[in-house]
Order: sequence, then structure tokens, then C-alpha cells
Amino acid sequence: MPRKGEMKLGVFVNQAGYSEGAWRDPSTPVNGSIEVDHYARVAAVAESAAFHFLFLADHLGSVEQGQASVARESGNAGLEPITLLAALTARTQNIGLVATATTTYNQPYHLARMFASLDHLSRGRAAWNVVTSASKFEAPNFGETELPDHDTRYARASEFVKVVTALWDSWEDDAFIRDKQSGIFADSTKLHVPNHQGKYFSVRGPLNVARPPQGYPVLVQAGASAAGTRLAAELAEVVFTAAPDVEYGKKYYDSIKEKARAVGREDNQVLVMPGIIPIVGRTKQEASDKLQRIQSYAHIDVQISLAERMLDVDLSSIDLDSLVPATLPTTNIFQSRQTVLLELAARHKFTWRQLIRFVADGRGHRIIVGTPDEIAENMVDTFNQSAADGFNVMSATLPGEFMEFVELVIPELRRRGKYRSAYAGQTLRENLGLMRPLNRFTQASR
Amino acid sequence: MPRKGEMKLGVFVNQAGYSEGAWRDPSTPVNGSIEVDHYARVAAVAESAAFHFLFLADHLGSVEQGQASVARESGNAGLEPITLLAALTARTQNIGLVATATTTYNQPYHLARMFASLDHLSRGRAAWNVVTSASKFEAPNFGETELPDHDTRYARASEFVKVVTALWDSWEDDAFIRDKQSGIFADSTKLHVPNHQGKYFSVRGPLNVARPPQGYPVLVQAGASAAGTRLAAELAEVVFTAAPDVEYGKKYYDSIKEKARAVGREDNQVLVMPGIIPIVGRTKQEASDKLQRIQSYAHIDVQISLAERMLDVDLSSIDLDSLVPATLPTTNIFQSRQTVLLELAARHKFTWRQLIRFVADGRGHRIIVGTPDEIAENMVDTFNQSAADGFNVMSATLPGEFMEFVELVIPELRRRGKYRSAYAGQTLRENLGLMRPLNRFTQASR
Repeated sequence: MPRKGEMKLGVFVNQAGYSEGAWRDPSTPVNGSIEVDHYARVAAVAESAAFHFLFLADHLGSVEQGQASVARESGNAGLEPITLLAALTARTQNIGLVATATTTYNQPYHLARMFASLDHLSRGRAAWNVVTSASKFEAPNFGETELPDHDTRYARASEFVKVVTALWDSWEDDAFIRDKQSGIFADSTKLHVPNHQGKYFSVRGPLNVARPPQGYPVLVQAGASAAGTRLAAELAEVVFTAAPDVEYGKKYYDSIKEKARAVGREDNQVLVMPGIIPIVGRTKQEASDKLQRIQSYAHIDVQISLAERMLDVDLSSIDLDSLVPATLPTTNIFQSRQTVLLELAARHKFTWRQLIRFVADGRGHRIIVGTPDEIAENMVDTFNQSAADGFNVMSATLPGEFMEFVELVIPELRRRGKYRSAYAGQTLRENLGLMRPLNRFTQASR
Repeated sequence: MPRKGEMKLGVFVNQAGYSEGAWRDPSTPVNGSIEVDHYARVAAVAESAAFHFLFLADHLGSVEQGQASVARESGNAGLEPITLLAALTARTQNIGLVATATTTYNQPYHLARMFASLDHLSRGRAAWNVVTSASKFEAPNFGETELPDHDTRYARASEFVKVVTALWDSWEDDAFIRDKQSGIFADSTKLHVPNHQGKYFSVRGPLNVARPPQGYPVLVQAGASAAGTRLAAELAEVVFTAAPDVEYGKKYYDSIKEKARAVGREDNQVLVMPGIIPIVGRTKQEASDKLQRIQSYAHIDVQISLAERMLDVDLSSIDLDSLVPATLPTTNIFQSRQTVLLELAARHKFTWRQLIRFVADGRGHRIIVGTPDEIAENMVDTFNQSAADGFNVMSATLPGEFMEFVELVIPELRRRGKYRSAYAGQTLRENLGLMRPLNRFTQASR
């Protein structure tokens, strides 16, 4: 059954591309991960296709797991996402800019300031992907031996975001009068001191940045565990998720929308956008050859290391040709991903080798291999079934596969009336159809 | 006596300009403080005159001191410096980019990453001005009631910088091989885990950013207290300072160079660059009229509020026409500035009103009012006397006074052979004549 409206699209930029070993692809510039021109080029391609946003992941550590895999690991030489996006504000015009930042090893005042600044620099195109850290390599960089308990991380995240939005509301939108004649810069009745005293934070405020053009930068979140979906339903305006197939995606979509409705939020203010990894070929054969080529980039040691991290398991003494068990000890790290991957492995009766391969290809995200027509059809079908409001396109290689997607698949989506041909507004909120949050204090005085 | 070589110049960018009330000047764009185009314009003027760097101050709080002064205070609506400079990397080519960041309310891993990233984004033009926080408005934004003790802040700063430089050395310069053919991305023997365990920090590392193009971004520091000069002598490559007159400047210059020599550092690797506020007129009369006009911008309430903060004193019940006393209770906040201002007041027998005026004009920095010829002569003389290796030009209004300086004073400096006409190198280090630090681990293995 067709569904009204058009899908939203983001491009997920993971250095050289989302597949393990993507950096070996001929299309990726050799120093790309630390080269702003590489990211600017991907942004330009995305903007030419009116993508809603460009999305940068993050983690606060280097991946180290034995000499062999350190040597083949490509994620240890990157750029910090907020500074990178700040640089891209000057090289883009319309696309939204999403930076990931953890609430576990940050302070609300810093992040409130940086994202407010990014929103001013981009004239209202900033978004914050709120994460709680899911890598064991982070804790020791901040004086801790391991990550705080999963639910503690989420409780801290919830309070953290409350503090940040209160800081963004410190000054009402029209607080700064700047009357050169009289010398009055601010209407002091429009200053509101958050004075937050909570379990995890004590932050007086006010922020020393004017309220962001969007009111708040768009809030993105990717929770899928019990605590994670609660947080998503409470605050996420864009929900990023790994849905390895439509079946899982539909279930997740319904559950998020229902939880959001329960806290009084409108369906169209909580956009569920799972990742997809499109492998595009002009023919079926070309697509599957391409998948094989891309798969050949990832050395088995790197694949195993990645699977160990995503699942929080030690595979060193496991027979890779044995079946994946139905359960593993519950992890404190990446709970939702562990659950999704184990469910998937059970459904498809995966051996460890098959699961490791699947993780290396897309870390649990859905891979669609086919012709432009097939990929577009698949996306539209997922959209029509209300299993997604749009997608995060996580191209296997950058810019290679992403350029193919834009050239070949975007026209098919447009032909089906499911994707726009130009930007509708200036801010990311306008482009996503999200309301601009009223300042809580302005609201109170009405 | 003439001195060999040329002076270095930085431009200090304090939103609308350095004088209190600068935002009221006709030359300043009304929304300038949150408008990237304003900063980009100043940067373009500076680059046209081959300035060595653009310098952004910072503080982690809003200034609030009674309703009246909040209304007239212009510093509460700015942009965060690191993100702002990241945006400017894309709009500048040669100029160095100095961001201030405090070690008191940050974590080394974050700052190491951000500055490394800024150095990559700018192709080697980043610098970090290390400060320890000197505003009572900061602590409550980070869960504390007041700033840590002055000496504790400096001890923490010293350890903080050690951790950051160790993180920058995590990967040797040529650690990332990126051999697409073999799939070897990194030479794992060139990875060095800092594993720092100290009094204030425990940081394992390694950093997940490649070593910065400059090895380390240039380290700037402005210590002038006992603890502050120790830190400057130990690590600063550019020393920023407030020297209200040449007499004080010469004393400070000699003391820093001597302390640096004592720890084995070369004179030309520790550049002392005091601030100056040039008020340029085509005639003496024009210059002094201009000073009067600029002074008229700052309301007395704002002037008093600023002086109270700089000196850590309550002026509400003091007769402003009485003489400034020789001493005040030692402050835990801005120790060196308090000392400098009290010494100056004693030398000139200032009343409180005069000292408040002096602080409002330039917060303790030297003001030079005159014709282009007089200002250039004054600067060259200070340089020749070895009371400065160069200057931070802290124009009273931006871009107004800065454009006047570039148009009128720069040619006079060049005519005297004391200022260059083009950039000498690509990186800020090259332009300042600073050595690129060898990676400590590379060094050890030679």
C-alpha cells in the first residue's frame, strides 16, 4: 500500500566507507580519513542529491586488539567530528550536519556550547547524535577501567540532555537587542539561569552563546536496548537504528512510535531512519561481483576483531564453523546490537563465520545488493510498509559506492515520487519537517 | 640599537573588539559576535597583511553581575573558539589559528583530539593557548562552587599538557602506511601507548588521530604569576602577556627568557608577544578624538564590573576618586593581572576612576595613541629594546580599528624593515621560526 510523502535520506560517513577494509577500494583517497577534501567531496555529492544530512559516528579511543589486527585496523587515524563538521559548514550550503558525541565522557556545558556554535556556524543545520559509549577502549582514556553500567549510562544521558537543552534556553530568542544607540546589548528579563542540580550534574549556566538558530540542534539517538528505546522515545527526533531486515525494522519502528506517542509526541516528530548498505550494479551480476570485491578487502583478523567488539565475545578459541548460540552473556557495552545480531543469527542459522562476515559487511545494518531498480523498490517498499521514515545510506566505500547510489538509485526513487529533488528549507528542522522547539521560558510567560 | 630580524604579529579577536563597548562602534556588524562572516572578514584582512596568527580568547561562563551590567554586557553571545576556528580553516590559507582552552575544566583526551584535528584541517596552522581559568563564573558550570586553588590549577595544567603531547606522539609521523595492496594500514611498531598515570590524570591512549602536521600544534601561554611564568618557561612557544608599558615589558621579557634558558630552551623558541592596543589617527588630534569616541562606548557600570573581575575586588562601597591602594587581598583568580594593574596604579598614582578607565580601554594591555609613524616607531623601539619579539594587536574595534592598523601602520613597519610582506612557510611553526617537535618515541629509537 503506497504511503504519502517522501522519504528522508542521510549519508553516513565512516572515513573510507562502512565496510571493513573500505580504505583499500580504488575510489578512496589514500589519506582520506584525515583529509577534509575527502569529506567535503562526499558532502558535495550528497548536497547535489538534496540529502537531508551527513552523519559522523564517533568513538573516544583507538582500536587495539593484538598486533596483527592493529596493523590492519583503519579506524585509528581520523578527525574529531565536531571540528570536522565545523570546517564543512564553510564548504556546504544546505545539508544537515550530524555529529556524534557521548554523554558518558563529556560535560554538558561543553557540548551545549559546541553544538550551539555549530548551529550558528551552519545557519541552523546542526544535529547531535547522543550516544552513551559502546567501546571498551574509551574508559581508560578518562581515568576509568571500564564503562559505567549500561543503565547508569542511560540515566546519565537523559539528565545530560536535559541540562543541555536548558542551557540552550538560557537566553530567549530575542534576548539580544544590541542597540548601539542606547548601549543596551541584552534584555536582562530574557535571561534565564538553568541552575540545574541533579544526580549526575550540577550546572548553573547560563550559556554564553545565543540560542541556536534551530532553538535546539536536531536530536538524534540510536537506542535499541530497553533503556535506549526509552531515551529515544523521550527525546530523539531522528532515530538511527540497525535493522538487518524488514521484519525486524517494522517491529522496531512500531515500538518506537508507540513509546513516543505514550509520552505525547507526534509520529512525524520522531523519524525512524535505519541504516542501509546499498551495493548497486547495473546488472544483478555486477552487483554481486561488487559485493565480492568489497568483501575481499577485509582481512579475517580484522573481521574477527570487529565481531568480538560488536558482540563483546572472545572468539579466539571458538570453532568458526560451529553454529552461533542463541544467547551470550549479557554485555554491558553494545547491548542492543548484540541482541539484534543474535536474533538474526538464530533466524538464519548462521555459523560464526557467516555472522562474522555479516558484521564485517555492515555491522548489523541491512545490505541490499542489486540493480538500481531493485534497490529503489526495496527502499520504497520498506517506506510504504512503515518500517522506516527514511534511511541512513551507509555506503560500503566512499566516495565510490555513494556516487553510484546517487547517480543510479536516487533517480529511481524520484521516478517513484518518493524522494525530493531540492531542499525545501534552510534549516535541518525545516528540511525534516520538525518543529522548532519554543524556549521553555518564553512558553512559560505566555 | 637596532635588532636583527622582523617582528611577529598576531591579531587578537575579541568579538567586536577589545575595548569595552566596542560593539557600539559603527564599524562592527550588529550580530558580529555570532556571525562567522565577521570573523572571516577580520581573518582576511589579517591574511592580506601576512599576520602570523589570529587569536581567540575564551571563558566558560556568562558574565553576570547585577541587572544593569548584564543588560550592557556584550560578551555573553559568542561562539565557541575551536569550532569557530575549524570553520575558518576553510576560509583562510596561511594564517595561524590560536584557540584558547582551559586545562581546569577539560579532559586531555578531548583537547588533544580537537587540536590535532584542527591542525589537520588547517594543514598545520593550529595553536593552543593554554589557560587555567580566571573567571569566577566558570566553576558553577562544572559542578564546583569556586575555582581550584591557583597553584593547583597550574600543577594540573602542567600535567595536562604533558598528557596531551604524549597523546599527540601516540603514532609516529610515518606510522600510517596505508598500503592498499597488502591491506596493511599501520606499522604497529610505530604505535606507542602513553599509558599516563599521574596526580590529576590517568589516560591510557593512544589517540585516534594521526600525529598533527606540526608534530604538536604551537603552544601558547600567558602566565605571569610565579606559577604562570614557570609554566611558560617550561612549555610556551609563544608567550602572550599584558605589559602596560615598556618598562614592565622589558622586565617580563628578560625574566621569561632567563627561566626558559635555565631549562635548556633557546631564546628564539620562546617568543614573547605582549598585547598592544593601537589607536591610529592620521594626525595626533584624530587619534585622540578617536580614543575619546571609543571610550564613550563603555557605560560606567560595565567598566566597574570589568574592573571588579580583573582585580577580584568589590567596588560597590569604594569612593572612585580615592587613590588605588598599593595592595589588595591576594586573589585566587587572575593573580598576575591584579599584580600588574596594582603596580601600574602605584607608578602613576591612579585613582580608582582612572584605573577603571584604563582597564575598560584595554584590561591592562598597552594603549598606543598616535599617528602611524608614532605607533610604528613605538613598536620598533620596543622590539629593538628586546622587550618583545612581536605583538598581539588587540584592536579596540573590529574590523574598524584593525583595518586602520593594517592600512596605515603595517606599511610603516615594513618601511623600517621590521615586518615581512608575505608568508614564509605553510605551517604556523614555519612562519614563526619554531622547530617541529620530534616524536619522543622516534627520538628514543635513534
